[in-house]
Amino acid sequence: LCGILSSARFEDLPPRAVREARRGILDWLGCVLAGSHHPAIDGLLRALQQTGGAPIATVFARDCKLGLLEAPLVNGQMGHVLDFDDTHAGGVLLHTSSPVLAALFAMAERVPVSGAQFMLAYAAGFEAGVRVGRAAPDHHAGGWHLTGTLGSIAAGIAAGKLISLKKQSLTYALGVAATQAGGLQQNRGTMCKSLHAGKAAANGVLAALLAEQGFDSSTEVIEGAKGFARIYSRTADVEQLTRDLGEPWLIESNGHKPYACGLVVHAAIDAVLALRGKINTTGDAVDEILLHVHPLVLSITGVKEPATGLQSKFSVYHSAAVAFAEGAAGIAQYDDARANDPGLIALRRKVKVIADASLREDEARAAIVTSDQREVAHVPHASGTAANPMSDDALEAKFLANAVPVIGDARARQVCAFVNGLEQVSDMRALIDVLR
Amino acid sequence: LCGILSSARFEDLPPRAVREARRGILDWLGCVLAGSHHPAIDGLLRALQQTGGAPIATVFARDCKLGLLEAPLVNGQMGHVLDFDDTHAGGVLLHTSSPVLAALFAMAERVPVSGAQFMLAYAAGFEAGVRVGRAAPDHHAGGWHLTGTLGSIAAGIAAGKLISLKKQSLTYALGVAATQAGGLQQNRGTMCKSLHAGKAAANGVLAALLAEQGFDSSTEVIEGAKGFARIYSRTADVEQLTRDLGEPWLIESNGHKPYACGLVVHAAIDAVLALRGKINTTGDAVDEILLHVHPLVLSITGVKEPATGLQSKFSVYHSAAVAFAEGAAGIAQYDDARANDPGLIALRRKVKVIADASLREDEARAAIVTSDQREVAHVPHASGTAANPMSDDALEAKFLANAVPVIGDARARQVCAFVNGLEQVSDMRALIDVLR
Repeated sequence: LCGILSSARFEDLPPRAVREARRGILDWLGCVLAGSHHPAIDGLLRALQQTGGAPIATVFARDCKLGLLEAPLVNGQMGHVLDFDDTHAGGVLLHTSSPVLAALFAMAERVPVSGAQFMLAYAAGFEAGVRVGRAAPDHHAGGWHLTGTLGSIAAGIAAGKLISLKKQSLTYALGVAATQAGGLQQNRGTMCKSLHAGKAAANGVLAALLAEQGFDSSTEVIEGAKGFARIYSRTADVEQLTRDLGEPWLIESNGHKPYACGLVVHAAIDAVLALRGKINTTGDAVDEILLHVHPLVLSITGVKEPATGLQSKFSVYHSAAVAFAEGAAGIAQYDDARANDPGLIALRRKVKVIADASLREDEARAAIVTSDQREVAHVPHASGTAANPMSDDALEAKFLANAVPVIGDARARQVCAFVNGLEQVSDMRALIDVLR
Repeated sequence: LCGILSSARFEDLPPRAVREARRGILDWLGCVLAGSHHPAIDGLLRALQQTGGAPIATVFARDCKLGLLEAPLVNGQMGHVLDFDDTHAGGVLLHTSSPVLAALFAMAERVPVSGAQFMLAYAAGFEAGVRVGRAAPDHHAGGWHLTGTLGSIAAGIAAGKLISLKKQSLTYALGVAATQAGGLQQNRGTMCKSLHAGKAAANGVLAALLAEQGFDSSTEVIEGAKGFARIYSRTADVEQLTRDLGEPWLIESNGHKPYACGLVVHAAIDAVLALRGKINTTGDAVDEILLHVHPLVLSITGVKEPATGLQSKFSVYHSAAVAFAEGAAGIAQYDDARANDPGLIALRRKVKVIADASLREDEARAAIVTSDQREVAHVPHASGTAANPMSDDALEAKFLANAVPVIGDARARQVCAFVNGLEQVSDMRALIDVLR
């Protein structure tokens, strides 16, 4: 894996991978800006004011710089705190961009880095994160939050690739990154969940810097007898590390969310939104919202009575209720007030969810029943997946909706233009300047 | 656990726990000084020169200060890089002091902290680390390096206790610390192994600082359905978290190593050293060194042909060879030159090791055979264990041997005097000043 990735050149990326890199960067930056003033970020920044980071890496939208290990911690958490960031659903459920891009933006502030170099490193980190996840197939079921664990690995490879580490050094970067991997699903619905993304980014930066200095590690950190694939997963499938690498690049199948919650609940939201126009009443008169979904939806988002906005993102019940009541499932629909709103609580208790293993993970069926109506819908592929992706226009609209309230219309459009022309950019710091 | 530890006072510690805290601090500081100029530390410091830590926390013996997350990273790795630091062998094999004390020294540099406060936090972190390990009994067999994983938890509780976090905040500190826990045994024999200790220290500091700012986590991060004890271990025994806490405190059974390698190989070294005086020849004429040891010795230190000093610490073969050839197993015996010395290589190939599950982990039998002699020895409890501890005098001699070459005789004796009178100390920064 490290041999292939260390020798990969930007010219090796097909146009679709480059396009997805641009889309990934734009979408992630919007999520970062939207999350930049979340209470979890305020707490993190207060803590980091005490750790003494010299101002060398920009914290986005907070008019502040921190150290090279601290800025990625913050930017990575910003990107993931609203659970609005991209998800790769090809075998693993990984929010790759928060760890990878938070690491890369910090590394790209030290020296001039071209847009092409940046996108290549992004694609390389993406590849490593998803492939190591596939090599450890029981990893998610084991209780790990992949954005923390695989995120460290993805960020380490990305940061290492950005500084052009050769095969052996990149192997060490992988070893140092993997040995720092952590993140418990037990912390879902708390501020720790998004901390995992930031921590992964910082772990990746440290791994690359250490490997650059000759710091060594096992050269079989994934596939070894006590390596990552064996101890983070009951079974291992290490051939996945390199099989058909580049055909296609995995970043090509990345997905971007229209809704501010886990991708697994998107199909159910799509279905409720589709039915909403057909039901001639408000939530009070609804007898039942019946959902058939893949079992993973309940195991990840089965919280019945969320008490906070963060918890409500892990509630398919809450998601269906707000989708019906408000016709939306954006950032606002997952705030603390709505999690505790009596009308929404009454409605979410009318949501029945049936796990059906014959459905795909991104498929859902829904029925809404009132005293005189029963309407049904079927969503074969959730919006936001590679099979039903957001269009470029929709993605730009999502970015602007996320970014404009934070940095204003002019700067937001500057970012769009910059990212659209990323292949011609010679120094990423021009973009970072706009995101201060 | 967090309720008990948050309300514990220094007066609750029995004299033996206080004594062991003092011994632990002295021994650890010696290991730190001895490890302070290891090539792994040089690499780490070169990397951290780029991360921009403001000079607020002292890096020991390197005439340098770094940020509050970076200094513990270095000091923690210094303490563990020679594998000469303390080991608690009561159910788990944990080098508690490197993560815990590296975190505490950094936290104690911000505001005046008394020696009593410091020792109480040390004992609390120690308790948490070992107890969580006992709650996850298959954790070590699963392939984790406990000093990284349990070390994060121990450091988080210690740092949180030092800043007097109350029950709920300390629970969050535990949650943030556990969700960062990492460290793969796959990285044994590399620079990553000791990085785990430093990383754990830094993780613990971050956890405490975040919890202080109201950053939340699961309140069942160890015992929850997807908590640490379930996912880092095939079986869980969560009653171990609090059973008989304080009767005695677990720091009372800490062990200190006379040899600069894993505690599991100490019994074998004791046995070879005991036989050495009875054999009237050099290694060339030895036909065989036969060792009977607990199976764990081979699974942890079974490296037959170590290529580096760090790898040789995980070779019972090398350990027996240097013990016979040089009558010692100190820092010098585990350098790169000896790992590649032809005479020692020839001798280590004559070492036969038989795993015998009827022996205790700290027990060994040895026989040395020459053409005209066969001598046998039995070591019931390895030196350095709680059952066969180093005396205060031996521990002070070890400290001086470690410290004097680095900070000189006068300052080393100042440290001894300071630690001996730790209960009366009102500000730990006076000690830190001596250790610059």
